[in-house]
Amino acid sequence: MKSLKIVALAGGVGGAKLVRGLAQVIDPKNLCVIVNTGDDFEHYGLYICPDLDTVCYNLAQIANPRTGWGRNGDTFRALQQAIILGGPDWFQLGDLDIGTHLERTRRIRSGEILSKITADFCQSWGITSKIMPMTDQVVATYLLTDQNEWLSFQEYFVKRQCQPVICKIEIRGKETAKPPKGLEKYIQDADLVIICPSNPWLSIDPILSINPIKEWLGKKVVVAVSPIIQGKSVRGPAAKLFHELGFIPSATSVAEHYQGLIQAFVIDAQDEREKKAIERCDIITLATNTLMKDDSSKAKLAYEIMNFYLMNFA
Amino acid sequence: MKSLKIVALAGGVGGAKLVRGLAQVIDPKNLCVIVNTGDDFEHYGLYICPDLDTVCYNLAQIANPRTGWGRNGDTFRALQQAIILGGPDWFQLGDLDIGTHLERTRRIRSGEILSKITADFCQSWGITSKIMPMTDQVVATYLLTDQNEWLSFQEYFVKRQCQPVICKIEIRGKETAKPPKGLEKYIQDADLVIICPSNPWLSIDPILSINPIKEWLGKKVVVAVSPIIQGKSVRGPAAKLFHELGFIPSATSVAEHYQGLIQAFVIDAQDEREKKAIERCDIITLATNTLMKDDSSKAKLAYEIMNFYLMNFA
Repeated sequence: MKSLKIVALAGGVGGAKLVRGLAQVIDPKNLCVIVNTGDDFEHYGLYICPDLDTVCYNLAQIANPRTGWGRNGDTFRALQQAIILGGPDWFQLGDLDIGTHLERTRRIRSGEILSKITADFCQSWGITSKIMPMTDQVVATYLLTDQNEWLSFQEYFVKRQCQPVICKIEIRGKETAKPPKGLEKYIQDADLVIICPSNPWLSIDPILSINPIKEWLGKKVVVAVSPIIQGKSVRGPAAKLFHELGFIPSATSVAEHYQGLIQAFVIDAQDEREKKAIERCDIITLATNTLMKDDSSKAKLAYEIMNFYLMNFA
Repeated sequence: MKSLKIVALAGGVGGAKLVRGLAQVIDPKNLCVIVNTGDDFEHYGLYICPDLDTVCYNLAQIANPRTGWGRNGDTFRALQQAIILGGPDWFQLGDLDIGTHLERTRRIRSGEILSKITADFCQSWGITSKIMPMTDQVVATYLLTDQNEWLSFQEYFVKRQCQPVICKIEIRGKETAKPPKGLEKYIQDADLVIICPSNPWLSIDPILSINPIKEWLGKKVVVAVSPIIQGKSVRGPAAKLFHELGFIPSATSVAEHYQGLIQAFVIDAQDEREKKAIERCDIITLATNTLMKDDSSKAKLAYEIMNFYLMNFA
């Protein structure tokens, strides 16, 4: 199992948790993570990549364990001063975290690409897995509210706390964006592709929208993990979005969302009764405890997914 | 004396000290400070104005009393992280200080002008004096070394620690730059203009290069304070630059540098024997203790300059 080669698709905290589990179960060098960058944004002039940082901080074990994002033991001295001067207070920027943003911003402004910067950061943080942004181009997720207002991801997610009702999602820039160099080879070499329990609309769809990532994945065994348990999101607005976009929020809806791409689906044991509905879509299903509260439950879920793959596909 | 209206020209630490003295002796509301922005630069994507911040931090009494620049009690958590990731370590960026840079960068990027941003920052910091950048346009001081290499101010001053031998100084962008709105009125209304003991070449000349500031000052009583005592700079490379540019480093050389613009000159008591040489240039001279070690010596020097003005020009 240690030698299995895995490509994982991940967004923020939910994705980062399973990625951390995978890195405990297989050789971390055999893990490649494609991370959503549709929620990247510029704030206070800093180039911020929330999902990339969340995945990296968690893998490097320097993430805030309480929130899942940000740095453990961070302080907020810089941001507090900016707020005193009238700056916006809705996005948390810790001092240690700002260090990441400063160096990324410096390199981006000097013309370097995000995938190279991320690779170098991972080396500094002692991360041996390959962490890749979905693209080196600027791609931005926008949401149209029922008030006919377009919001950027962070305006929706952080500033407006996912309160607005959403009618439509646009992934701007996807047409001209390309996957980073080297990603195709990682996918070709992978035994298994895992879609982490991230938001299908806001974290995974942006990754799948970058051509030809979806086509590359079409040749692989792909297993997704449901971010919805008992009709509710484990965290974030996934269930709310399914509802607003006209679907019943359920593990089954997530499976149907990925239909045609995935061969297997992992649902929570509490949703076992949905198994039949999902298997009707030609998707084999594993029902187990999918809540990841600590490092050992992350590793346990990763182990069960690996085992499920070996039993059914290897 | 309280009601005297003063315009001061200032660079970094030396200028900020006298400005702090002036604000103790006159009504701070009657003080307008024109600050050099020729050493402003972008670093880590942040828009940094070292002299503006030094003047403001000192007036707000939040400056580091040991260095004269930076914030008192600052920490360096963000910069340390950026350095771990491979970022440059030659320019100190404290966490509290970064707060200033973040909010300034945010507003500059959204199209606001530096003079308005500075005015708002001063209000937040409780500064009632008027602090103005010499211009709202980008003007940058460059130095040509004897190795035929052009250095930006911060490369010369901080990164290279003023070590290179300088042949020539250029103030780039001065031709198209304009003084900020409202400055003419402050100069018109001033009883007295004071050129602080800042570097004549690197701090004051950039201010005087912005047309028509020099012309406006030509109609006023102008007194300068020597940044050179006993042939040595109180701090920084002023004496070294005088030497490299072909002048004997002395208070007299500073007075000659400003000849035609100033009517009075303040030298240190240790340089009293230069008095005659300076007065031969039609510049009346006050010799007193010009070293400003603490708030009371700053106020004392400011008081003596005011008194000297009242005795000779009022």
